[in-house]
Amino acid sequence: MASTSSLALSQALLTRAISHNGSENCVSIPAFSALKSTSPRTSGTISSRRRNASTISHSLRPLVRAAAVEAIVTSSDSSLVDKSVNTIRFLAIDAVEKAKSGHPGLPMGCAPMSHILYDEVMKYNPKNPYWFNRDRFVLSAGHGCMLQYALLHLAGYDSVREEDLKSFRQWGSKTPGHPENFETPGVEATTGPLGQGIANAVGLALAEKHLAARFNKPDNEIVDHYTYSILGDGCQMEGISNEVCSLAGHWGLGKLIAFYDDNHISIDGDTDIAFTESVDKRFEALGWHVIWVKNGNNGYDEIRAAIREAKAVTDKPTLIKVTTTIGYGSPNKANSYSVHGAALGEKEVEATRNNLGWPYEPFHVPEDVKSHWSRHTPEGAALEADWNAKFAAYEKKYPEEAAELKSIISGELPVGWEKALPTYTPDSPGDATRNLSQQCLNALAKAVPGFLGGSADLASSNMTMLKAFGNFQKATPEERNLRFGVREHGMGAICNGIALHSPGFIPYCATFFVFTDYMRAAMRISALSEAGVIYVMTHDSIGLGEDGPTHQPIEHLSSFRAMPNIMMFRPADGNETAGAYKIAVTKRKTPSVLALSRQKLPQLPGTSIESVEKGGYTISDNSTGNKPDVILIGTGSELEIAAQAAEKLREQGKSVRVVSFVCWELFDEQSDAYKESVLPSDVSARVSIEAGSTFGWGKIVGGKGKSIGIDTFGASAPAGKLYKEFGITIEAMVEAAKSLI
Amino acid sequence: MASTSSLALSQALLTRAISHNGSENCVSIPAFSALKSTSPRTSGTISSRRRNASTISHSLRPLVRAAAVEAIVTSSDSSLVDKSVNTIRFLAIDAVEKAKSGHPGLPMGCAPMSHILYDEVMKYNPKNPYWFNRDRFVLSAGHGCMLQYALLHLAGYDSVREEDLKSFRQWGSKTPGHPENFETPGVEATTGPLGQGIANAVGLALAEKHLAARFNKPDNEIVDHYTYSILGDGCQMEGISNEVCSLAGHWGLGKLIAFYDDNHISIDGDTDIAFTESVDKRFEALGWHVIWVKNGNNGYDEIRAAIREAKAVTDKPTLIKVTTTIGYGSPNKANSYSVHGAALGEKEVEATRNNLGWPYEPFHVPEDVKSHWSRHTPEGAALEADWNAKFAAYEKKYPEEAAELKSIISGELPVGWEKALPTYTPDSPGDATRNLSQQCLNALAKAVPGFLGGSADLASSNMTMLKAFGNFQKATPEERNLRFGVREHGMGAICNGIALHSPGFIPYCATFFVFTDYMRAAMRISALSEAGVIYVMTHDSIGLGEDGPTHQPIEHLSSFRAMPNIMMFRPADGNETAGAYKIAVTKRKTPSVLALSRQKLPQLPGTSIESVEKGGYTISDNSTGNKPDVILIGTGSELEIAAQAAEKLREQGKSVRVVSFVCWELFDEQSDAYKESVLPSDVSARVSIEAGSTFGWGKIVGGKGKSIGIDTFGASAPAGKLYKEFGITIEAMVEAAKSLI
Repeated sequence: MASTSSLALSQALLTRAISHNGSENCVSIPAFSALKSTSPRTSGTISSRRRNASTISHSLRPLVRAAAVEAIVTSSDSSLVDKSVNTIRFLAIDAVEKAKSGHPGLPMGCAPMSHILYDEVMKYNPKNPYWFNRDRFVLSAGHGCMLQYALLHLAGYDSVREEDLKSFRQWGSKTPGHPENFETPGVEATTGPLGQGIANAVGLALAEKHLAARFNKPDNEIVDHYTYSILGDGCQMEGISNEVCSLAGHWGLGKLIAFYDDNHISIDGDTDIAFTESVDKRFEALGWHVIWVKNGNNGYDEIRAAIREAKAVTDKPTLIKVTTTIGYGSPNKANSYSVHGAALGEKEVEATRNNLGWPYEPFHVPEDVKSHWSRHTPEGAALEADWNAKFAAYEKKYPEEAAELKSIISGELPVGWEKALPTYTPDSPGDATRNLSQQCLNALAKAVPGFLGGSADLASSNMTMLKAFGNFQKATPEERNLRFGVREHGMGAICNGIALHSPGFIPYCATFFVFTDYMRAAMRISALSEAGVIYVMTHDSIGLGEDGPTHQPIEHLSSFRAMPNIMMFRPADGNETAGAYKIAVTKRKTPSVLALSRQKLPQLPGTSIESVEKGGYTISDNSTGNKPDVILIGTGSELEIAAQAAEKLREQGKSVRVVSFVCWELFDEQSDAYKESVLPSDVSARVSIEAGSTFGWGKIVGGKGKSIGIDTFGASAPAGKLYKEFGITIEAMVEAAKSLI
Repeated sequence: MASTSSLALSQALLTRAISHNGSENCVSIPAFSALKSTSPRTSGTISSRRRNASTISHSLRPLVRAAAVEAIVTSSDSSLVDKSVNTIRFLAIDAVEKAKSGHPGLPMGCAPMSHILYDEVMKYNPKNPYWFNRDRFVLSAGHGCMLQYALLHLAGYDSVREEDLKSFRQWGSKTPGHPENFETPGVEATTGPLGQGIANAVGLALAEKHLAARFNKPDNEIVDHYTYSILGDGCQMEGISNEVCSLAGHWGLGKLIAFYDDNHISIDGDTDIAFTESVDKRFEALGWHVIWVKNGNNGYDEIRAAIREAKAVTDKPTLIKVTTTIGYGSPNKANSYSVHGAALGEKEVEATRNNLGWPYEPFHVPEDVKSHWSRHTPEGAALEADWNAKFAAYEKKYPEEAAELKSIISGELPVGWEKALPTYTPDSPGDATRNLSQQCLNALAKAVPGFLGGSADLASSNMTMLKAFGNFQKATPEERNLRFGVREHGMGAICNGIALHSPGFIPYCATFFVFTDYMRAAMRISALSEAGVIYVMTHDSIGLGEDGPTHQPIEHLSSFRAMPNIMMFRPADGNETAGAYKIAVTKRKTPSVLALSRQKLPQLPGTSIESVEKGGYTISDNSTGNKPDVILIGTGSELEIAAQAAEKLREQGKSVRVVSFVCWELFDEQSDAYKESVLPSDVSARVSIEAGSTFGWGKIVGGKGKSIGIDTFGASAPAGKLYKEFGITIEAMVEAAKSLI
């Protein structure tokens, strides 16, 4: 393909914006109000977006002329690109140097491709980082975050001002050591743990493909954006990236374009010591279109041509392998691991300034570079206004679809959605909570437009199929059953990407509870990045039986109770399952894990959807004055055992309270008075039962209480036999209680 | 290649055995006594091995004749193979049917390739499953374990007798629901969680390549065996398998031969719904030799030819893609997910019996099949005796190498190895425990022949390089620094394979502590399968500073304390680090995790290598009569804070005990009297401090104590600032203590 000046693409975008600029709509249409809730950071955003919208017409006109001029003067343009690219390099160098900590190497090598992306290719509105139809960018090699901060700064995002660059990696700054979506508007995903970012990108691209297929009309393609990502050798080595890239190829995510920063250096040195596979061939095997840009250091036109080619391939994701030099420009450290993760040092910074001909003081952005990038503010406002107009037309013509899309964009759930959840009485037939979960999932999918998900090849065991929908596939992306294959880690991270795409997306994903071990890194990122994914984890104890200890969770409940910002639910029956889903759907900034039984359980008297909100609550009590002889505490499948043990003890004249501890995190949030009403400090006779590790129960049963659980691995045998052999029985609980009364 | 009768290969093996049979050595040389300690199950093995060794000469002779006859009668041979293959199928069908639980599909499809492996190709001694130079086999698709049980049964392993097959998946049986090495001699690795097995196989093959390069001599190739594995579509989808297969290709593990059971079915149905990549091309990209056997159902000669070809390729691992029909032989369920993970049901078992012409009752092994397989007992004994003779010659000529190899084979550490560990006094210079760890690693590598390991691309941060050794690479496999690249999950599972290869292998592996989330599934398998891997986990708290919350562990200490059979160490200084290593090296059936600091720490008075064995112990105390006013408890980098807080309190006239809680699991193992001596029940004023989750500390500080920790995510800033902002300070501890006194 012929080379194109850097402005051809940006001009094309500009033209799109301008074509609507003359219309009244562009100036007058505000963002629809539903967008208010897209992010915690948008409090000040609406007004600034409106302000920009109203100033577009005059701010754009001079730019049009400038663009026309620049398009002719190709050579000066090229030198301006050089200058802009070096600006990015030195902002990264200077920030790392000031912090005496960070990773300058990647930004120095990736500045060219990322300059072209942010300056020439991507559509976004810097003054509203949450504008729905923006292109998404994920820096999967998150340690190179100064690259992204420099880009956001140049592009005009308010989240990264000069003072933010100067407080890189400092307490309270908007520029933490790795990109954090919850800290820095403009950052789409929290990356750093390698491979997570490309997986998030697959999730973002999936979300776009799904929405486009579901909502676009021949006369109005209301959903239409790309997902870009930069990943490095580290991301490529991680298994998760192979998982998600295999899926991206399978799904044919044509609007996913990933740049592989092929710099041959990782922390341990040359990648030759551990990474000699052919990445190109592997991606071809995964069904990707692969392009190799041999000169990533200054082959701007090669990069541009590659992006054009990638966009032309619509049925496959594209990997653009860009061969770069890590630390490009540093005369003594480029192309070595020493530039990967440490400041260059005063001398080498000076040498690099000389080498690249950079006469400026630290953090300086030359005026012509600043001016060149300044157009993105009006251009972005115009893009958003354009889209708002398009949406207004869409809404008029397709009100039902618009309402659904609006709910997904805004995160505002349809009124009364929670009424869809099933309720149960003690007379309702007993069932495994995995089956009761399926009733909830199907009810929610009908009531909540952005509800979708699937299993890692265990749909028929996890009971996660949405019966009203088909499979999300290459040819049927409008459907809502996701088929992840046996790829737990990728599944979790893809769901993070979906959740982060739009606040109304509520993705769920499923496997056996024990296999959270495969996806724990992604789950922690859910919790950290405030992605409200719902983890449907069935086969939650030795109750799964014959599959044996490789499949039986023991320490998993404890391990999630210890993790910040994630709710660990272990519902006992239908009402508690529905109650857990109600909270999981509501809390969009906290992911939830539901541990569900394989085995059938009764519907217990005393449980309710509402009570689950308290985390721990009394389901039955024959005592008076908040002074039972003993408190029996259970969760999930063992709550039934606690209830039956209580009956036995009551028959023997004891006053017994039975407490369900369905979600510890929610109980922790209750008032001291409420906690005292459930677990009075005077009552030290407390017995807990749970078919899992007793670790952590000490705090709840107290120094004199007893915890019945399993602190060894399980075994292979029918479930009933295991419960008996491991002592998870009514008799054990009665005995423990009696020893304390 | 021309086809070869099934007996050509087995005969070749037989010939090798027989060639030594005539010599006196073969009959008279017993296994060397060091082998006694290779396994807990070998108690009765030595004698049976000796018995076999002494009966070889007469038991082999008839077999030689039989082999010669059978080699001519190819047609009857082929029908006998059919019969043997069907025996495997029906043993699996019958066991699953009796258990009403299990996975018949894979054994039915994989019976042909596995028959050829166990009957014609592999060398092993069924009466000593731990014979060092055996070929290893790992069923990565562990759910198909009845395949392996049937093979072990036919091959004459005592671990799987007819009654064991009949108690498949029952309490206490030797035939659990997934293969467990610690339960069933003959099973090399614990599999079931998908992808782990092929990773173990890579570790086993690495171990062989390392030992062969290190110990083989031109006149005596004392180490010489293959590693075989069967993996399915599920294993292929898991990211871990791509990680380890990339490494296997990089390392050129030519004696690793993996069979990919290409049956197009997983639990959710046809793999077309989630898995359409080209596995062949991907493996070629990873540097493997790839062969496709198109008819895996009965193309015996194709399978044989493929194995021959694989063996001829010595510089690359080989993937033999074997296209099979899952549930082959079942007229109504073959080639469908319904045969994957459930019993066929009485009717379909009957139909399958009719379809395959199998007139026998359940669990029947036809006499000619039994007779055919019976040769493996004498043949295996001959193989071992042959090797023992070879070893005797080796030992005579190369006594030093033989002593090292013997230590690795037997697990008997050189006398006085522990003296190599460094010791420290309070005057020794302070240092980060990651650096102190490096001193231990280097000391141990010199003292312990089987000590080797490496990092997931963080060697210079984890401080894990062994200075006396080079890198284990394709051309230098005798070296001991393993370079895993950014592949934590694969790293852990490969180390499991190394540990399981021979009891004297002590592999360590390293990354940042937070990234245990990437490898947790492998770590759990270490714990379950009793593989004593040492996990060197640095950057163990917010103390790592600027990298921020994606890199700062919070809940990780708790999450491992809750896991069965793994020791979670958090040493505070040099002595505690050395003490942790001493135990980690000693406890070969329990893996260890060492959480180590990035930041410098002082050498504390009161710590010692020996005390670490207690798990928790007093480092200083100014009280009398076991009644301090308050007990301050710390671990790792916060023990210093506890010590300093104690000084402040003592200055104010308080009697204060400071306790190091370096390993909870070891403290739990102590006597009640010891525990009472450290944490007297009368002293309820207890304060713990740890820069991590407080989850679980309630049990130790008791209902009236206080725990200082961090129950939210961390942040990006210099370490000192973070400690202050998160309140992990001397002042906070003093204040908490005062509030309790």
